[in-house]
Amino acid sequence: MDPVTEPEVVRHDTRLDRYVGHYAARTHGMRASAVRALFAVANRPEVVSLAGGMPNIADLPLDVVGDAIRDLVLEHGTQAMQYGSGQGEPALRERICEVMSLEGINAHPDDVTITVGSQQGLDLVTRIFCDPGDVIVAEAPSYVGALGTFASYQTQVVHVAMDDDGIEPDALRAAVEAARAAGRKPKFLYTIPNFNNPSGISQSLERRRQVIRTCRDLDLLIVEDNPYGLLRLEGDPLPALRAMDADQVIYLGSFSKTFAPGFRVGWVLAPHAVREKLVLAQESATLCPPVFSQLAVASYLDRHDWRGQIEAFKDMYRARRDAMLEALREYMPPGTTWTTPGGGFFVWVTLPDGLDAQAMLPRAVNARVAFTPGTAFYADGLGSRNMRLSFCYPTPERIREGVRRLADVVNREYEVHRTFGLSADEAPHRQLDTFDAPAPDLS
Amino acid sequence: MDPVTEPEVVRHDTRLDRYVGHYAARTHGMRASAVRALFAVANRPEVVSLAGGMPNIADLPLDVVGDAIRDLVLEHGTQAMQYGSGQGEPALRERICEVMSLEGINAHPDDVTITVGSQQGLDLVTRIFCDPGDVIVAEAPSYVGALGTFASYQTQVVHVAMDDDGIEPDALRAAVEAARAAGRKPKFLYTIPNFNNPSGISQSLERRRQVIRTCRDLDLLIVEDNPYGLLRLEGDPLPALRAMDADQVIYLGSFSKTFAPGFRVGWVLAPHAVREKLVLAQESATLCPPVFSQLAVASYLDRHDWRGQIEAFKDMYRARRDAMLEALREYMPPGTTWTTPGGGFFVWVTLPDGLDAQAMLPRAVNARVAFTPGTAFYADGLGSRNMRLSFCYPTPERIREGVRRLADVVNREYEVHRTFGLSADEAPHRQLDTFDAPAPDLS
Repeated sequence: MDPVTEPEVVRHDTRLDRYVGHYAARTHGMRASAVRALFAVANRPEVVSLAGGMPNIADLPLDVVGDAIRDLVLEHGTQAMQYGSGQGEPALRERICEVMSLEGINAHPDDVTITVGSQQGLDLVTRIFCDPGDVIVAEAPSYVGALGTFASYQTQVVHVAMDDDGIEPDALRAAVEAARAAGRKPKFLYTIPNFNNPSGISQSLERRRQVIRTCRDLDLLIVEDNPYGLLRLEGDPLPALRAMDADQVIYLGSFSKTFAPGFRVGWVLAPHAVREKLVLAQESATLCPPVFSQLAVASYLDRHDWRGQIEAFKDMYRARRDAMLEALREYMPPGTTWTTPGGGFFVWVTLPDGLDAQAMLPRAVNARVAFTPGTAFYADGLGSRNMRLSFCYPTPERIREGVRRLADVVNREYEVHRTFGLSADEAPHRQLDTFDAPAPDLS
Repeated sequence: MDPVTEPEVVRHDTRLDRYVGHYAARTHGMRASAVRALFAVANRPEVVSLAGGMPNIADLPLDVVGDAIRDLVLEHGTQAMQYGSGQGEPALRERICEVMSLEGINAHPDDVTITVGSQQGLDLVTRIFCDPGDVIVAEAPSYVGALGTFASYQTQVVHVAMDDDGIEPDALRAAVEAARAAGRKPKFLYTIPNFNNPSGISQSLERRRQVIRTCRDLDLLIVEDNPYGLLRLEGDPLPALRAMDADQVIYLGSFSKTFAPGFRVGWVLAPHAVREKLVLAQESATLCPPVFSQLAVASYLDRHDWRGQIEAFKDMYRARRDAMLEALREYMPPGTTWTTPGGGFFVWVTLPDGLDAQAMLPRAVNARVAFTPGTAFYADGLGSRNMRLSFCYPTPERIREGVRRLADVVNREYEVHRTFGLSADEAPHRQLDTFDAPAPDLS
């Protein structure tokens, strides 16, 4: 064939994506993360991954779960395998209200909408509230998967500083007022009040009251994302924001961390008018969330001591968190700081001034340890001195070994920096020019 | 409390939805269907529902499925209950390529993206291609659930007429050229080539060639939705459009009709560049589709004679289709016509001139039979003389009884019309002023 007389062939050879002229505006912002290739390497067994957010579910009683689900098929199979309600199965929505009551929430099953993981809750809430250009206010830093969803709806994320008690109310007010003064529409505050992903910071009780009061004043909805609330490693649970204000708060919940993520069962608890919109959006997105998954989770809750299981998970995660904190104290160079999370999955590390965590990632992977660079958790390019370390998945021994390897890399960079005084931007090892969020936050 | 001094109370009492000023533009178009209340009644056991699209899965071997899934939990539980790939599990994507090969498709598992039912395939494809105001070309009539999704992305649907061989290529070309002349961007043709929902009409082989040629000429992508292709009741399968052109066609598949819908496992087969965007969109929407559902479906395909099961489904649906066609011939008044589908779930009835199917629905439900009014399947208000009757779920005896009841209602309306010559719009029984799509298409 002659490429000159065969324009079809020329077109295909010279243009990587022949559909590029057809995509929606929102799609042009979607790019695969530059660190995906690195994370693929990080999944090799010899690498200690402190990068992912996968819960450790090795201790779940597989025999109990297997029998419960087989019985579900035998006894209710034609229901479990059929289409169901767009809002989700009533039996599960009742159990979800029991789960939420552990954090002080008094809710009716009719106000719960089941979602495909709480990630889909984020997607549907953003879908019904946000036009392109609208503003979402979020903690600095905030969950990478949420930032990805917000970007896909062409919104602008405005980050608000946190202190040790969580997001700062005055900074929140100032951010909202500035956005409004600039003609933008802030649609909601997105907050993870318990063990923020990635920082591990939690809102104190008094701070929760202040945040709610501030948002009421500003007529700003609150989207409360609470996957880790029941994984509080010390003391009693604090009330959810939703427990303190049923009218201002849309609550996102999940079974991914208290049971298992593979069923993809999350939920949104929302005021009635919002719930109606969520159900319509869910029908448009999936017709209905998976009935089988929902009834499988309900069977587990019926058959197993799920509260006792959460206690067992907490003991397991406490040992891992403690191993990480101890190793950080032992190995990290002076000038490195980190948070001390009271629960959840993550420790947030701040490197000495002048070091660049993102630029360090290839060297870390080469040293057989992976982390997530802090820039992933900011929509505005900040976070270059930060790394998120997760203690959820590896064993305490592996965590200790991983932190040791990571500290070696940090120490070497620290010495280079002290000797030559290179700023991170000038350092010859810098290899990644851009950084996109490494969604999904799993590997 | 005094409502005058308690502005909170006044606000809540006087405004049904206090969030109405906060929604996105796309959300204002979301409304619950006016016929939902009627369909709720239609779900009572005494009503024969010819309205829904639920497959009959009563003949699935529950013992086989139950054992397969229990073994999945025991042997691979920590994988099945964990997060997975945003693209979907490789083992299932391989099996999907086997399924598609039955319709002549030669595909690589790497080009398959798993979705939460093929409804989510529709959602993600629309998400990556369509900006507000873009045009989607679809058959007249077309699937109500797709029209709902397209509306949620603020697109405009342009319907193109069908004849007995499917969508008409000349009309398709004219529609696309007219949209472009008006400055609009037609993004794709949405077509159900096998047993169109709701009409039951299929594209002939020659028509498939013409449609592909026309779309190539127009540089218009084709989104081929094929949930019913393997439920062809007579003769050999026709090749899928995707089997005839791998470059122009995005293919949507589903296990909902060939196995069971409750797992919500569908897929999109797309050219590589499009597949990359779909995976990013999936990660933003759900992180990953449910791993448990995917591996459950893969276990079923491994353990069961699924091809034989499809043959059994076909025998069952053939008897139901034949019962419906026979009852229509026996009971319907002169001037009523209907399609004779070669497969799928639906017969499309056209009432005598002057009758209004939608206005007839409350009377039908009162007579203990339900159908879906034809207007649900048009974005432009047409279809008032049509009803979609589904033969998938009720037994042949119930179908016969349902058609008899429905024919009684039609006959009475027909007599009133003949006697008084009322047009549908003037008829005193007209009760529904507007009609929104009764999504989901299940009840």
